[in-house]
Amino acid sequence: MIKIAMLGSGFIGRFYADSLQGYRSRDKIVSIYSRREESARKFAEDYGVAHWTTEMEEAIARPEVDIVCISLPNNLHEAAVMLCCKHKKAVMTTKPLGRNATEAKRMLEAVEAAGIFNGYLEDLVYTPKFLKAMGSVQSGALGRILWAKSRETHPGPHSDWFWDLEQAGGGCILDLGCHCVEIARSYIGKDIKPVEVMCWADTQVKPIEAEDHAIGLVKYENGAIGQFEVSWTFRGGLDLRDEVMGTEGTIWINNFLRTGMEMFTTGKGADYVAEKAESNTGWLFPVGDELNELGYNHMFMDMFDALEAGRAPKETFYDGYVVNAVLDAAYRSAKSKLWEPVQLEVWRGQEGLSKPSQYTEWDADHYLVKEEMTHYGARKLILKHKVSGEFLQKVLD
Amino acid sequence: MIKIAMLGSGFIGRFYADSLQGYRSRDKIVSIYSRREESARKFAEDYGVAHWTTEMEEAIARPEVDIVCISLPNNLHEAAVMLCCKHKKAVMTTKPLGRNATEAKRMLEAVEAAGIFNGYLEDLVYTPKFLKAMGSVQSGALGRILWAKSRETHPGPHSDWFWDLEQAGGGCILDLGCHCVEIARSYIGKDIKPVEVMCWADTQVKPIEAEDHAIGLVKYENGAIGQFEVSWTFRGGLDLRDEVMGTEGTIWINNFLRTGMEMFTTGKGADYVAEKAESNTGWLFPVGDELNELGYNHMFMDMFDALEAGRAPKETFYDGYVVNAVLDAAYRSAKSKLWEPVQLEVWRGQEGLSKPSQYTEWDADHYLVKEEMTHYGARKLILKHKVSGEFLQKVLD
Amino acid sequence: MIKIAMLGSGFIGRFYADSLQGYRSRDKIVSIYSRREESARKFAEDYGVAHWTTEMEEAIARPEVDIVCISLPNNLHEAAVMLCCKHKKAVMTTKPLGRNATEAKRMLEAVEAAGIFNGYLEDLVYTPKFLKAMGSVQSGALGRILWAKSRETHPGPHSDWFWDLEQAGGGCILDLGCHCVEIARSYIGKDIKPVEVMCWADTQVKPIEAEDHAIGLVKYENGAIGQFEVSWTFRGGLDLRDEVMGTEGTIWINNFLRTGMEMFTTGKGADYVAEKAESNTGWLFPVGDELNELGYNHMFMDMFDALEAGRAPKETFYDGYVVNAVLDAAYRSAKSKLWEPVQLEVWRGQEGLSKPSQYTEWDADHYLVKEEMTHYGARKLILKHKVSGEFLQKVLD
Amino acid sequence: MIKIAMLGSGFIGRFYADSLQGYRSRDKIVSIYSRREESARKFAEDYGVAHWTTEMEEAIARPEVDIVCISLPNNLHEAAVMLCCKHKKAVMTTKPLGRNATEAKRMLEAVEAAGIFNGYLEDLVYTPKFLKAMGSVQSGALGRILWAKSRETHPGPHSDWFWDLEQAGGGCILDLGCHCVEIARSYIGKDIKPVEVMCWADTQVKPIEAEDHAIGLVKYENGAIGQFEVSWTFRGGLDLRDEVMGTEGTIWINNFLRTGMEMFTTGKGADYVAEKAESNTGWLFPVGDELNELGYNHMFMDMFDALEAGRAPKETFYDGYVVNAVLDAAYRSAKSKLWEPVQLEVWRGQEGLSKPSQYTEWDADHYLVKEEMTHYGARKLILKHKVSGEFLQKVLD
Repeated sequence: MIKIAMLGSGFIGRFYADSLQGYRSRDKIVSIYSRREESARKFAEDYGVAHWTTEMEEAIARPEVDIVCISLPNNLHEAAVMLCCKHKKAVMTTKPLGRNATEAKRMLEAVEAAGIFNGYLEDLVYTPKFLKAMGSVQSGALGRILWAKSRETHPGPHSDWFWDLEQAGGGCILDLGCHCVEIARSYIGKDIKPVEVMCWADTQVKPIEAEDHAIGLVKYENGAIGQFEVSWTFRGGLDLRDEVMGTEGTIWINNFLRTGMEMFTTGKGADYVAEKAESNTGWLFPVGDELNELGYNHMFMDMFDALEAGRAPKETFYDGYVVNAVLDAAYRSAKSKLWEPVQLEVWRGQEGLSKPSQYTEWDADHYLVKEEMTHYGARKLILKHKVSGEFLQKVLD
Repeated sequence: MIKIAMLGSGFIGRFYADSLQGYRSRDKIVSIYSRREESARKFAEDYGVAHWTTEMEEAIARPEVDIVCISLPNNLHEAAVMLCCKHKKAVMTTKPLGRNATEAKRMLEAVEAAGIFNGYLEDLVYTPKFLKAMGSVQSGALGRILWAKSRETHPGPHSDWFWDLEQAGGGCILDLGCHCVEIARSYIGKDIKPVEVMCWADTQVKPIEAEDHAIGLVKYENGAIGQFEVSWTFRGGLDLRDEVMGTEGTIWINNFLRTGMEMFTTGKGADYVAEKAESNTGWLFPVGDELNELGYNHMFMDMFDALEAGRAPKETFYDGYVVNAVLDAAYRSAKSKLWEPVQLEVWRGQEGLSKPSQYTEWDADHYLVKEEMTHYGARKLILKHKVSGEFLQKVLD
Repeated sequence: MIKIAMLGSGFIGRFYADSLQGYRSRDKIVSIYSRREESARKFAEDYGVAHWTTEMEEAIARPEVDIVCISLPNNLHEAAVMLCCKHKKAVMTTKPLGRNATEAKRMLEAVEAAGIFNGYLEDLVYTPKFLKAMGSVQSGALGRILWAKSRETHPGPHSDWFWDLEQAGGGCILDLGCHCVEIARSYIGKDIKPVEVMCWADTQVKPIEAEDHAIGLVKYENGAIGQFEVSWTFRGGLDLRDEVMGTEGTIWINNFLRTGMEMFTTGKGADYVAEKAESNTGWLFPVGDELNELGYNHMFMDMFDALEAGRAPKETFYDGYVVNAVLDAAYRSAKSKLWEPVQLEVWRGQEGLSKPSQYTEWDADHYLVKEEMTHYGARKLILKHKVSGEFLQKVLD
Repeated sequence: MIKIAMLGSGFIGRFYADSLQGYRSRDKIVSIYSRREESARKFAEDYGVAHWTTEMEEAIARPEVDIVCISLPNNLHEAAVMLCCKHKKAVMTTKPLGRNATEAKRMLEAVEAAGIFNGYLEDLVYTPKFLKAMGSVQSGALGRILWAKSRETHPGPHSDWFWDLEQAGGGCILDLGCHCVEIARSYIGKDIKPVEVMCWADTQVKPIEAEDHAIGLVKYENGAIGQFEVSWTFRGGLDLRDEVMGTEGTIWINNFLRTGMEMFTTGKGADYVAEKAESNTGWLFPVGDELNELGYNHMFMDMFDALEAGRAPKETFYDGYVVNAVLDAAYRSAKSKLWEPVQLEVWRGQEGLSKPSQYTEWDADHYLVKEEMTHYGARKLILKHKVSGEFLQKVLD
């Protein structure tokens, strides 16, 4: 059994608690810190937590605590992490790690200097579909990965602090883009260096300073492209989709709005409210088991198995730092309108890669450009002459 | 922690073990019985089980065992249950409970006489989608339930004994129909009596005595209709879908082949084999987390929570008996070509219901037949005169 | 150019007119008959029809008319057909042909005695998807057809006469089942004799004498099974799906509610009304080109090409008669609760077929029951000994 | 009846001919020009064309020709258009109009100077789904349009000349991006000025000089964003999807790979070849009526109705020119890595727009940021104080 101190009692803290203490789990939250006493008490009551406090350090320092789980607004992550370092407590932090790479790097360096376990709670690289897809990618079923896109859009976050640029550190790029960047990076290869970013961002609808819609491209050293599409202005629920293209295959994942469950209701029968839906009548698309589908279960399993085994989890502060560095470049790009370099003072992956060019040979004189099946069942080839560069088509019987 | 004796080391036993000892579970298999020593040893090794045996009673009788999990061929369920009764061990049995209602009734009576915990492992009424859908149905979002269909078809079971009429007790009706009947019965209401069954069954393709394709209708006392479609001749993978119609809504669930994950692969890149798919190239539709999607996790959670709390689980031997009684009627109907009564010597639900007829009144003289929106945006009504029975249409602005 | 007299100016007459005079068609409605002068005038105006009348025979008899299109309530088909015979006018009739097979047979005999062109307007065997699927079935891509299901359910018809048993001749079985029966019959083979029918029908919701929900099975002489599911009580729009199972493949068609177009709207922006949808906010699923998707265009193309070529169209009164005979058996079965024989006094297809039993041989001693790919990539076989009947499993590397 | 001279007998010429002479059309190809005599003869034979030639001008100049249809490689469009001007023949040209805006502008000026009818054959803004979606957008169902994406990717074009940079003028940006740009521009408003473009392009896989993968953003004067995703390296068939986001709604269109028809085949039964699919076994997703679904029918209907009515069609050379200008900016951007201005020497839409900022007022002191339904059925608001800029959340019962 692992004993957890939870910092933060809001929406995400409760989601985490549901997963941590859910399906016959061995693990237990033993202390809850919230800035507001009322929230701390309520959380303690709802989740059967023995100790609550409005003093952060008190929760962290308790001797029975094995690991601290940070579910606080972005601007409070660093202070919380530093206290974990001080008390040498294992720590895991909700996403994004920092409001920017400078904060993230300080946290990374601090936990490593303190020698404590550090986990980065990027749940969307732990969803069952992602894990299955990743297995296929790693087995080579898609060939060389060319492009990986992740899209997360919805009508905006649930809590007030997200909308405040100071507390949040950014808008939908930071809030949602952190997911998308780590998803694409994972498909392309976490040891492949992200080199530059082009990003468009705008505040199209909401009365806020931060961006409410953004699209970005992340170029990797091996020529692969990551793409993120994020928005707080989407209408229709939570759109959470990934797409991957490789030389030998394709993967499409729909994590939320179309997962094989469809319901129509006139609304006459009941006040039923579908979670995260924007309406409660007509066609609705509930997700069966949200905690599992969003990756929380498999994420905490990895964290605790790693903690017990004395190894690093799949996602660490280092990953959180890389993500922050990519997002920083995105913010700079949105302003400068240029491709901005990703500034990675710490980089632990491969260096010096270039784009592979592996042409398929047809015969001694020609490359194969394309092979297809015609309407009438014959094989048709497009070939390119190696020397002249001329293209020709050829139909085989 | 709950300690389990597992009887049977085949395909389903391994599936159960993956779930039982999976996601940070507190529970542990402590003894494995298999008819073949080699299988018992292998299972013990793979799942870290301390004790293995080829003597069934030895596994059951061990003092540390809290509950026995029966994952044996259908013809061995009864003997195993009787041993559990003898040793007063809690027991849970894979589906179907018996090869027929006579066997099932003997098992039901035995466990109740012995006063032991009894669970019926009908995983498909524990899938996350089913649980969510059931919540909507119970909240009234679909109004009065009129029809509930469940379809399970695939290219045939994995093990030899399924194909042998003596060991299995039946073909796809027993193997797959047991799921479908309990699903439909749950949506319609487990306290509503199934009264008669019409079933078509045939051996269309396979060289077997049992049926490889069947379709059945189950009439309930309140006029609702359950429907099952089962086959071992389906091509394309595992088709597992439910549909429910109510007076105020509709639910469609796709549990397997279309759950929001799609992959295309040329097959050049790797020897990737998609589980339960019929091919490993082209478009494939993997399920992210099969154990969770098929209900195993939530099923065992209910079983163990119930065992610990000293209450009955959601699915008991009584439910298994009702399902067997419905399937017996289906088999009789397939032969007699008549609607056959469901013979329920034990019935613990409501009695004497009749079909409700609740017409909607439009005004003092008319019933409302239908209300619709026309192409040009007006409300159009179809009304029926209460006395003359004449129909008229009326367009409101 | 073909010149048409249209009988009937209601919902279906207008749908037909939209298709007949639609996409750069060469064909023209030259006379419109309606029982009500107001409707006739309005139709003539809307579609630029030169002549209108409230006398049916007047429309039919006009010399410029090449073909008569009957879009009248079911109880008026026969009289209209007889007038076409009298005036030796080519005729095409909306579905169902008659209210029962007796009417249908009289119409069939009359048009054949008169030697006039006769077309049966079963649009759903002319939808683009059906035509494509039928091509695959005929090319053998699905192997031997085992089962073909068609489902049509919606919240009830648009016009008052449909709800009146006397005028309509039946409820949703006649209104919707006629489509489903001809679809399944086409996949199975129009020369394969339908031999018996089992049908459940009930009036579950609506204040009417006719059935508002029914499910039926149609057994064909070669052992194949057709299935229809029809209802006027479905909530959620127009559900129009077909499924076909063959020994080598599967086809699933969704004609209406899920065709690749999805829209979410808050409804704030406009009074947009989606056609046939049950709501105008939330998630909506419009069909792009309803006339084409529902088969009207390809149906009239076949009718007119056939008329010009002096050949019979794909669907004739004979087909309409067969469908009526199957539905008559369904109605008898719903009352008798027995499998009722299809009484076909006129039958022009094959006779004396029996169910094929083509087992696959594995070796001299065994039949192949099933071949599958295991999780670990090996081929696994289920075999049956030809003499002993025993089953065994075998794993190949 | 309209009489057409067809220039070009390749893949696209045949597609056009199938549509032009398809479903009971009144229109007829009366002359076919091909560079190769064999192709011209074959086309004439297949489509019943009275006259064939290998002299382009001969086909154009024939007196019976009402309109010339250009289906030639991109580098031959301009010469063909000039001959139409010379002979004062109405002309319609396949997409893209030119290899670049300079060519396109010359063509535009020439046809306008000659006073001839000119149509731009952008079929994808005539698909049934696009037309339906456009109706919804224009009715306001989506509110203010914020973003419109179009994606077209497949495994590469069918004919050799596409792969040759000189003949084609570009790679997938020109070949596929022209569709995407006009689709997004239509949703956003054809009178809204595209102002600048950011584009990433690369040759990731194919042995060609042109790009085989590109992603671009097009900024419009009113702040809306168009996006195109194009590739010749996609595996899995033809991926053709559009997405539109507005302040009040969302539209998703899938034109090809998921349109409600699904087929599984083992391939044992037949040599069936699914069109444009990359395999002929396993799960396949045919489109019912390709000509209609891809917009050809509605496109030619608009062209000919316009020609007969003496009005301009929906898509003219002017539109083709605007598209070319946007694509030129994309090519410049892919090289310069900068947002490149769209150079529109001819612009006939609105000028001087700026991004609207219409905040929703909650009360005198606050703007409404977001309103949502909580899990427990209450309304929750996020508000922003107009003066202090502070955010607060508020739960209403």
